[in-house]
Amino acid sequence: MRPSGRRTDQMRDVSIDTAVTRHAEGSCLIRMGDTHVLCTASIDNRVPSFLKNSGLGWVTAEYGMLPRATHSRMRREAKDGQSGRTQEIQRLIGRALRAGVDRVALGERQITIDCDVIQADGGTRCAAITGGWVALKLAVNKLMKAGLVISDPLVDPVAAVSCGIYAGQPVLDLDYPEDSEAGVDGNFIMTAGKLIEIQMAAEGATFSRSQMDTLLDLAGGGIEELHRIQREAVA
Amino acid sequence: MRPSGRRTDQMRDVSIDTAVTRHAEGSCLIRMGDTHVLCTASIDNRVPSFLKNSGLGWVTAEYGMLPRATHSRMRREAKDGQSGRTQEIQRLIGRALRAGVDRVALGERQITIDCDVIQADGGTRCAAITGGWVALKLAVNKLMKAGLVISDPLVDPVAAVSCGIYAGQPVLDLDYPEDSEAGVDGNFIMTAGKLIEIQMAAEGATFSRSQMDTLLDLAGGGIEELHRIQREAVA
Amino acid sequence: MRPSGRRTDQMRDVSIDTAVTRHAEGSCLIRMGDTHVLCTASIDNRVPSFLKNSGLGWVTAEYGMLPRATHSRMRREAKDGQSGRTQEIQRLIGRALRAGVDRVALGERQITIDCDVIQADGGTRCAAITGGWVALKLAVNKLMKAGLVISDPLVDPVAAVSCGIYAGQPVLDLDYPEDSEAGVDGNFIMTAGKLIEIQMAAEGATFSRSQMDTLLDLAGGGIEELHRIQREAVA
Amino acid sequence: MRPSGRRTDQMRDVSIDTAVTRHAEGSCLIRMGDTHVLCTASIDNRVPSFLKNSGLGWVTAEYGMLPRATHSRMRREAKDGQSGRTQEIQRLIGRALRAGVDRVALGERQITIDCDVIQADGGTRCAAITGGWVALKLAVNKLMKAGLVISDPLVDPVAAVSCGIYAGQPVLDLDYPEDSEAGVDGNFIMTAGKLIEIQMAAEGATFSRSQMDTLLDLAGGGIEELHRIQREAVA
Amino acid sequence: MRPSGRRTDQMRDVSIDTAVTRHAEGSCLIRMGDTHVLCTASIDNRVPSFLKNSGLGWVTAEYGMLPRATHSRMRREAKDGQSGRTQEIQRLIGRALRAGVDRVALGERQITIDCDVIQADGGTRCAAITGGWVALKLAVNKLMKAGLVISDPLVDPVAAVSCGIYAGQPVLDLDYPEDSEAGVDGNFIMTAGKLIEIQMAAEGATFSRSQMDTLLDLAGGGIEELHRIQREAVA
Amino acid sequence: MRPSGRRTDQMRDVSIDTAVTRHAEGSCLIRMGDTHVLCTASIDNRVPSFLKNSGLGWVTAEYGMLPRATHSRMRREAKDGQSGRTQEIQRLIGRALRAGVDRVALGERQITIDCDVIQADGGTRCAAITGGWVALKLAVNKLMKAGLVISDPLVDPVAAVSCGIYAGQPVLDLDYPEDSEAGVDGNFIMTAGKLIEIQMAAEGATFSRSQMDTLLDLAGGGIEELHRIQREAVA
Repeated sequence: MRPSGRRTDQMRDVSIDTAVTRHAEGSCLIRMGDTHVLCTASIDNRVPSFLKNSGLGWVTAEYGMLPRATHSRMRREAKDGQSGRTQEIQRLIGRALRAGVDRVALGERQITIDCDVIQADGGTRCAAITGGWVALKLAVNKLMKAGLVISDPLVDPVAAVSCGIYAGQPVLDLDYPEDSEAGVDGNFIMTAGKLIEIQMAAEGATFSRSQMDTLLDLAGGGIEELHRIQREAVA
Repeated sequence: MRPSGRRTDQMRDVSIDTAVTRHAEGSCLIRMGDTHVLCTASIDNRVPSFLKNSGLGWVTAEYGMLPRATHSRMRREAKDGQSGRTQEIQRLIGRALRAGVDRVALGERQITIDCDVIQADGGTRCAAITGGWVALKLAVNKLMKAGLVISDPLVDPVAAVSCGIYAGQPVLDLDYPEDSEAGVDGNFIMTAGKLIEIQMAAEGATFSRSQMDTLLDLAGGGIEELHRIQREAVA
Repeated sequence: MRPSGRRTDQMRDVSIDTAVTRHAEGSCLIRMGDTHVLCTASIDNRVPSFLKNSGLGWVTAEYGMLPRATHSRMRREAKDGQSGRTQEIQRLIGRALRAGVDRVALGERQITIDCDVIQADGGTRCAAITGGWVALKLAVNKLMKAGLVISDPLVDPVAAVSCGIYAGQPVLDLDYPEDSEAGVDGNFIMTAGKLIEIQMAAEGATFSRSQMDTLLDLAGGGIEELHRIQREAVA
Repeated sequence: MRPSGRRTDQMRDVSIDTAVTRHAEGSCLIRMGDTHVLCTASIDNRVPSFLKNSGLGWVTAEYGMLPRATHSRMRREAKDGQSGRTQEIQRLIGRALRAGVDRVALGERQITIDCDVIQADGGTRCAAITGGWVALKLAVNKLMKAGLVISDPLVDPVAAVSCGIYAGQPVLDLDYPEDSEAGVDGNFIMTAGKLIEIQMAAEGATFSRSQMDTLLDLAGGGIEELHRIQREAVA
Repeated sequence: MRPSGRRTDQMRDVSIDTAVTRHAEGSCLIRMGDTHVLCTASIDNRVPSFLKNSGLGWVTAEYGMLPRATHSRMRREAKDGQSGRTQEIQRLIGRALRAGVDRVALGERQITIDCDVIQADGGTRCAAITGGWVALKLAVNKLMKAGLVISDPLVDPVAAVSCGIYAGQPVLDLDYPEDSEAGVDGNFIMTAGKLIEIQMAAEGATFSRSQMDTLLDLAGGGIEELHRIQREAVA
Repeated sequence: MRPSGRRTDQMRDVSIDTAVTRHAEGSCLIRMGDTHVLCTASIDNRVPSFLKNSGLGWVTAEYGMLPRATHSRMRREAKDGQSGRTQEIQRLIGRALRAGVDRVALGERQITIDCDVIQADGGTRCAAITGGWVALKLAVNKLMKAGLVISDPLVDPVAAVSCGIYAGQPVLDLDYPEDSEAGVDGNFIMTAGKLIEIQMAAEGATFSRSQMDTLLDLAGGGIEELHRIQREAVA
């Protein structure tokens, strides 16, 4: 029934290659099917001004898409500024990752996660969160190895997956052909069995409470699998 | 337990005054406690270019806050552009309202809903959606009265309410003192017993599946009450 | 002869309601006929950098119009920045109010007057100045009551009124139907029998010295009436 | 009493050199003392869209200042956009010149007047208007010579001069040392014995009705002299 | 003598992998040592308006750098617009590639080359030109295979290499450690034994005519090698 | 053969008038044929932040064109920001002039060179560099006369000239009719017999190594003549 022939509860193949770029303190290339996102973590000893002398760390994120990551070429955002959509996504990534960070243990420093979509096929923001956590963890490991951070501020992984109602059926991990048809879809972000953020939207449609329950179940299953892959990548 | 002394399932007092401005085709001032939002509906016979000759209508929304709607004065957005937050909110309002519109019945015209916060005390985007629907309905009624629209494109009201976990307890309709303390909060948008959109976010925290269930229950109750008030306002 | 049936020297009905918003240190809603402007005063202990350690206070103003304050909807300025017209108006309001302030008595603090047009029917900048002074005075009264300001920096009210030549006849306080027809019109700002600012412009027309004299007479009469209403509002 | 030793009713030396640039349809360099403004007129066969097929012409103006036209170097406006002051000035120049144009006689074409201040010593906007009219007239003469315009759309010259109260005394044509000290000053624009625009402003001061009368007298005298120089320049 | 131990006339290892992204009509990843640039070619049937109905094709380029392509993180250009440097580089890439295109043979269509630097170690604009030509050629091959272009518009490859004076010695293909020390450096772009563009600049230094001759010799040798690698990549 | 009748190695008539504006520390109007550029030098005691406490001086440049400096009117850059071309030119002027400055001898101060094109006929950036050096030298002379600079930081003049291939023939100092036809052209910047910068570009064309040699010869001759005129101007 799904264009890809996947079962309703089946994610795309996921792989995470680490240390893919030379300069960043942490980096990975995450592939969720044909969605490929390059994630880098950059450590900065300065924190935003509202955290000066607070002893607390900060994690923030930025998101971009190469102009030809998509089927037809998009306008380069450097030309007329980040769209509202881009800003919304990067704030989401930052919030999601911060929810899994012990900011006292991190200490007064900032880590910026850059998520750049090299190739898009649906679910880029979820891949960015899942890969972003890996880049973040690798940078933090470097800080711990150098003795700059003592207690691990990143105990459990943060991952995200999309779910939606496609052809009337709740399905896990929508690819672009599904995403562009689905009237209802959303993103679920979780850590260690707990929810961090849910964004369910229906463009010109509605969904019932029981459909919502099925989507929550599908998401829970997908996230568990992603957490396993994340742990392997940073091992 | 709540700063306002409300029960966990108790909304603030809600009132909706209609026809509060002279020029707009539909207008109302919605008050949810100390949150006051002026909503106007403006009819335009031109639709966005992607809908030209489609026979379909469009509903869009814009959102703003007067600089001193808040406790301390905010910078005027006209000075350096809409923030990402503002853009995110106005896209949400537009999507929410469109989910309750029969765009074929509306016909090829656009209605713009302007939601301007005169005074803020938490929950401005929910008040904007709830009041925005009233302004929209009044404008549509005018079109129907003039015979320009035959079949009512707005059968059921769309309303929104916030819920969150305050002091460890799920509560309905957070005011600003609660909102600024709550680690977890979100917005629920519904029409006729069905969900349109859910946005649950935890800034630096997490929530369980069973807490999510309680929040969905609280939201359902609040929305029912809002639908009643909306129906009275447009009667 | 005038569309409203008013005499040439007759202003529209003017009312000023104070304390209309909860957060601002001073606020009022001024109505000059169908022109309604919400004015708030916000006190800030920091002054612009050119006044640091000068002992002098500052009063500044910002002006905006809700998109549907007008007959047909205008573009929201937050979307592409303040127009030259808006900037010109807000500089005028600031200059006008400062002319009536003893900045030594005010002390080194800044008061920002926000003037937001809820509904427009001509003469919005004049209403903004007249209402802005009331909001300013209320904020200053609060500072005096708290003992932060000793000697009253606002002895005489500042008010503004428009005059113009409509259908060949000098008239006082133009409403929108008159304003859009008048080839010559202007704004007169006065305090305590003295002039602060005059802006007379003729779009594609001219006027004689004796017409100018009549306009000055009309303005003087209108301003006297406005001063009386202002004094009542702040009493 | 005046820093320059001039009488209160004495203008600075004024000269207008024409045809100072090769490409423009009309051009002049106006010198009012040490204020030097290069004015060019550019003819365009397209009019703004609101005038398409109206048969009416349009005159518009733009204003700029070279960064080192002033005593200390100013930021280049090309770097961060035209200031509100610049926009206000160029709208003033455009309005002033249009008041002296028979737009039917001009026919459906646009003339843009660029006024660029090469050296500033007070009164740049007045010099721009006075010189701008000369550039405009020269361009129109070219159109008439070519038979493209039959009846002269520019019968009487438009000129502008500043007046103000310096050291308690009404004076004509303020230079920079006077302008920076004067509490009250303004600009008077006239054609053929009639007023086009008056802008009197008092920064932190006020002025009486009788002072206003004296300023109107001074301006009238100065403008007469400017009209004479303009007529000579275009002869 | 060179930090990398290379001879003065020795380029870094160069590799070009093609078809590295799924959506673009042509793509490659070029590696010049540690400088890695992803180049994609996007075909558009519309040409810029100045070429409408001319029968001529157009090739244009855009350039970007991922924020952490560099040693320390750079600000994302989507946040505040393309720098002058970025605009200068992308205009250079476009001009260089157009010099090698028979625009009549290409036909009235536009090909946009996006060059995004994944990792930077000096010489990114040269790598972008060299890789950009490969992406362009692959896209053109697709057009020829589809019979949309008959005669090959890209007979000879266009490549670029940097040269400079490092430690007093003319050297070929500067890496970042050399580039940041060299007082004199430049870029040479060639096709088929002919020069297309030379940009030699000396920041705070100078160079002699005979040094210029040596640099031209070094560049010629490097370009020949790059042309060979380009031909292999597109074979 | 050349439209102007000049020999291939003949420059246009060049004149440099100094002290043409009252406020700037150094100024000149350079005329290269019909290309007229006003150059001013402004001394500022503050240096850019990266030079604070370095003891080194800085020279920077800005470039602009009056809207009607060209054959048909261009859009004013103050309206929508400096084009990439403008930014590229002003960076070039700054780099070129810095190459001729002993920044230790200059001491920790900044000199800004503003180059504003009053009338354009090709070669404006070369005229700006050549005239910019004169303005810079005059400002430095003032510093030396005041004893603020002891050892001359500007021993040899910096000048620039364009060369190109017009009608198949290498020619010196292209005017606009040549420049708009030439497939290959460039700018050569020199001081004291040494090269500072070369920019040769071929829009849609190529050039041989031997043509490059001829262009270098032509440029050398032209620069020698310009140096002579510069020395006379500042004498």
